[in-house]
Amino acid sequence: MTIHTALDELSEVLGDRLSRSESDLALHGRSEAHFPETLPDGVLYPDSTEQVATAVRICATHGCPITGWGVGTSLEGHALATKGGVVMDFSRMDKVVEINAEDMDVRVQPGVTRSRLNEELRATGLFFSVDPGADATIGGMAATRASGTTAVRYGTMRDNVRALEVVMADGRVIRTGSRARKSSAGYDLTGLFVGSEGTLGLITELTLRLWGQPEAVSAGVCAFPDIGSAVDCVIETIQLGIPLARIEFIDAECVRAFKMSSGTDMEEKPHLMVEFHGSETAVAEEAARFGEVVAEHRGGPFHWSAKPEERTKLWKMRHEAAYSMRALKPGAVMMATDICVPISRLAEAVEETTADIAASPIPGPILGHVGDGNFHATLLIEPGNAAEMKAAKDLAARMADRALRMGGTVTGEHGIGLGKLDYMEAEHGDGWSVMGDIKRALDPGGLLNPGKLIRSN
Amino acid sequence: MTIHTALDELSEVLGDRLSRSESDLALHGRSEAHFPETLPDGVLYPDSTEQVATAVRICATHGCPITGWGVGTSLEGHALATKGGVVMDFSRMDKVVEINAEDMDVRVQPGVTRSRLNEELRATGLFFSVDPGADATIGGMAATRASGTTAVRYGTMRDNVRALEVVMADGRVIRTGSRARKSSAGYDLTGLFVGSEGTLGLITELTLRLWGQPEAVSAGVCAFPDIGSAVDCVIETIQLGIPLARIEFIDAECVRAFKMSSGTDMEEKPHLMVEFHGSETAVAEEAARFGEVVAEHRGGPFHWSAKPEERTKLWKMRHEAAYSMRALKPGAVMMATDICVPISRLAEAVEETTADIAASPIPGPILGHVGDGNFHATLLIEPGNAAEMKAAKDLAARMADRALRMGGTVTGEHGIGLGKLDYMEAEHGDGWSVMGDIKRALDPGGLLNPGKLIRSN
Ligand SMILES: Cc1cc2nc3c(=O)[nH]c(=O)nc-3n(C[C@H](O)[C@H](O)[C@H](O)COP(=O)(O)OP(=O)(O)OC[C@H]3O[C@@H](n4cnc5c(N)ncnc54)[C@H](O)[C@@H]3O)c2cc1C
Ligand SMILES: Cc1cc2nc3c(=O)[nH]c(=O)nc-3n(C[C@H](O)[C@H](O)[C@H](O)COP(=O)(O)OP(=O)(O)OC[C@H]3O[C@@H](n4cnc5c(N)ncnc54)[C@H](O)[C@@H]3O)c2cc1C
Repeated sequence: MTIHTALDELSEVLGDRLSRSESDLALHGRSEAHFPETLPDGVLYPDSTEQVATAVRICATHGCPITGWGVGTSLEGHALATKGGVVMDFSRMDKVVEINAEDMDVRVQPGVTRSRLNEELRATGLFFSVDPGADATIGGMAATRASGTTAVRYGTMRDNVRALEVVMADGRVIRTGSRARKSSAGYDLTGLFVGSEGTLGLITELTLRLWGQPEAVSAGVCAFPDIGSAVDCVIETIQLGIPLARIEFIDAECVRAFKMSSGTDMEEKPHLMVEFHGSETAVAEEAARFGEVVAEHRGGPFHWSAKPEERTKLWKMRHEAAYSMRALKPGAVMMATDICVPISRLAEAVEETTADIAASPIPGPILGHVGDGNFHATLLIEPGNAAEMKAAKDLAARMADRALRMGGTVTGEHGIGLGKLDYMEAEHGDGWSVMGDIKRALDPGGLLNPGKLIRSN
Repeated sequence: MTIHTALDELSEVLGDRLSRSESDLALHGRSEAHFPETLPDGVLYPDSTEQVATAVRICATHGCPITGWGVGTSLEGHALATKGGVVMDFSRMDKVVEINAEDMDVRVQPGVTRSRLNEELRATGLFFSVDPGADATIGGMAATRASGTTAVRYGTMRDNVRALEVVMADGRVIRTGSRARKSSAGYDLTGLFVGSEGTLGLITELTLRLWGQPEAVSAGVCAFPDIGSAVDCVIETIQLGIPLARIEFIDAECVRAFKMSSGTDMEEKPHLMVEFHGSETAVAEEAARFGEVVAEHRGGPFHWSAKPEERTKLWKMRHEAAYSMRALKPGAVMMATDICVPISRLAEAVEETTADIAASPIPGPILGHVGDGNFHATLLIEPGNAAEMKAAKDLAARMADRALRMGGTVTGEHGIGLGKLDYMEAEHGDGWSVMGDIKRALDPGGLLNPGKLIRSN
């Protein structure tokens, strides 16, 4: 078999960088979500760009699929090697290569995680802003065009990657972008690879934009009588130009999950969690102005603080939300949803979704990065329960329809992987074919993460 | 001839939307820069996306090149039909289709100019932020990935286009992006078309991000003893996190041009022009803090004001800079340069360039969007003077080398067109071939703006 010939040659050339151990295959055969386990034939742990290029050339010769792997936290089965072949695990390529404090940029290998990167940056007064709930790798985050709670202020991976080194499907190594803050020098290849889910090339190095740690931070949380008031409060805050660094929505069901896992004394009502970054006077002023908007929308009282401990507690709870929610239904598998709509349609979108879930047999707490119009209902399914799985799929499909009907997108930040393939035609029409044309031009053998993102032949 | 068959059929199907008048050909045969005149065979003035698609299908059938045209202000000969065929002039597709104030976005046809768009937006309290020195069209600006004085705060066209309608080389009409603020739904086609200079598709509609007009604005100008101090002042201001809305550098030669054309009483020294956007207290505070940084760098006094008249005068002078500079050498043609480097290398880059120009036989006043590390030396050449043309080309080539050596890009905002083709290999290496692969996949006949951006076969 061609895959096995490739594996033999990989093992000959790269030695113990290739593993075929059962535990390694199993570890790289599952995802965080509801997709069935699917084992790769081998797992590669490259140390360097050269090893990646060598491996890709060997795989290309033998027609062996290659699927990149960061830490496997993606939520749509992105990193599952559904056509077999090798998984390329970047965990050994995890160095922070060069920090340029003056230019506020950093060069990293793809396997470094966002939290370790920020630890290494601490002394510089700078930070990397993108923060998905999981401690993902920078390579995985670039590949899925990830974002998180701070996108409303600092943007997504699209906005925070300046340059890449990429190994192409034929083993060529290219560099895209530069350390300049902007450029008009030809097609934006950096932007093309960001979000391409490992289907166009493997990212072996990234230059990231950094931000200065704000002089002061204030953060707080408050309850609202209903979803509509909470969302209207978000819209008005944005329109008033109050500069939000974070604004997260949490529904009552989600608060219930937090209470079970962290013992918070929040009321079981919809909440907003917010944060402001700026000078000391500015963050106090902004928190105060936000408090007024909250009151106008019958929310509050808005408790806020500039104390680091209280802030950390708040965002820790938020970041662990996915795990808390699973506690609502122990043993459940999760189906993540991720729609993003124009802000003017957000209340409607959340309310329709809430009603739809309430009428279904499964729980689906909702939270979201509402400053961007992006929210998730985490659908919790009893493993092996076909009726619940069907109910979840139907709910997710109706959310996707809803997002498109409102001028939005089926995925704000998680990506397509396997789980959202069925909506690509509806979202992009002929644009999806254009994506296929690009894929075939850059990966004619279809070896890079096959079965994902693009229409299968 | 195939081009003529195409023209006959275009005239049959589209009637007077096609012009072959000498004046129209001449008008679309020249550029703002030093490139020789080159006439197209016909000029099309489509009224609608359908007409664009029809025309493209006819041209595709007959192998007739098509080059888009906004208002022809691009600086690298982008819109010249060097292989003949038709120029597609978008001036009749200039409608503001839909303003969504709540979502802070607007849908426009490509032929609307930035100043008219902002006039139409005035009553909404919102504005479109990208402002190249010329009153360019939004379609042309997207095609060149333009920016301008406000990019340091609001980003470039890359950051301000949410969605596009594009007519592909085979006449298919696709939509990219959506009205959502972010998305991870597949390859970023919007980002791919932005900056593609009409070589991958023709843009027939754009959805743009808008910004709230700031509550207050302060602006000012100050002189520095030398270039190094001015640039160091920029770097420190950015590192202190003082939020700049604009920061422009102008060298002494450039001030001389301003004095000749507008009679300003500025000293013939390097200057910075700056602007701050925010609340009334914030913009006053920021101007004051900036004034301190200026003084530390031996600049000043820093005069600032929150009065609209004074601000308008300041930026009018800046926006008319290119025209003022030509007055330094009446009748001269201009070669624009446009390098962008990491901010830490900016002083070095400007100083080396200044010395290089001083040693050459031609004038080249320098100004730039220094907050992004981007600056232009406008090289002024006597028409028909081969020695001056050679001197200019050599200076421009050395600027390009300098930018690449410092980790930057040969073009921060103007694009490649004809003038920067020779540097693509040096900037992108194999990445340039990847751009060629994409071009061939989406425009296999090579009909869209042939001869630009991509390596010619
Ligand atoms: C609890 C929880 C909360 C989350 N919250 C968020 C959130 O707020 N926002 C958000 O955006 N996401 C969120 N996610 C999803 C997930 O964290 C992101 O999708 C993340 O970007 C995945 O990174 P990873 O390193 O785990 O990548 P993986 O899952 O390992 O891989 C993801 C994709 O990237 C490809 N890939 C990985 N490395 C490379 C490389 N070097 N080159 C090319 N392709 C590569 C893989 O092939 C795969 O297609 C959450 C997930 C969980 C479990
Ligand atoms: C005085 C002066 C100052 C300038 N200052 C700046 C500045 O500060 N920043 C900056 O970025 N630029 C600046 N420029 C350059 C110029 O304004 C920009 O390049 C602008 O984006 C060109 O827009 P246009 O409408 O004139 O396009 P054109 O010159 O007509 O066309 C530019 C390119 O876009 C393509 N194109 C046009 N319309 C479409 C369409 N609908 N679909 C597909 N392709 C299309 C054309 O084929 C061509 O390749 C300046 C120019 C001048 C003369």
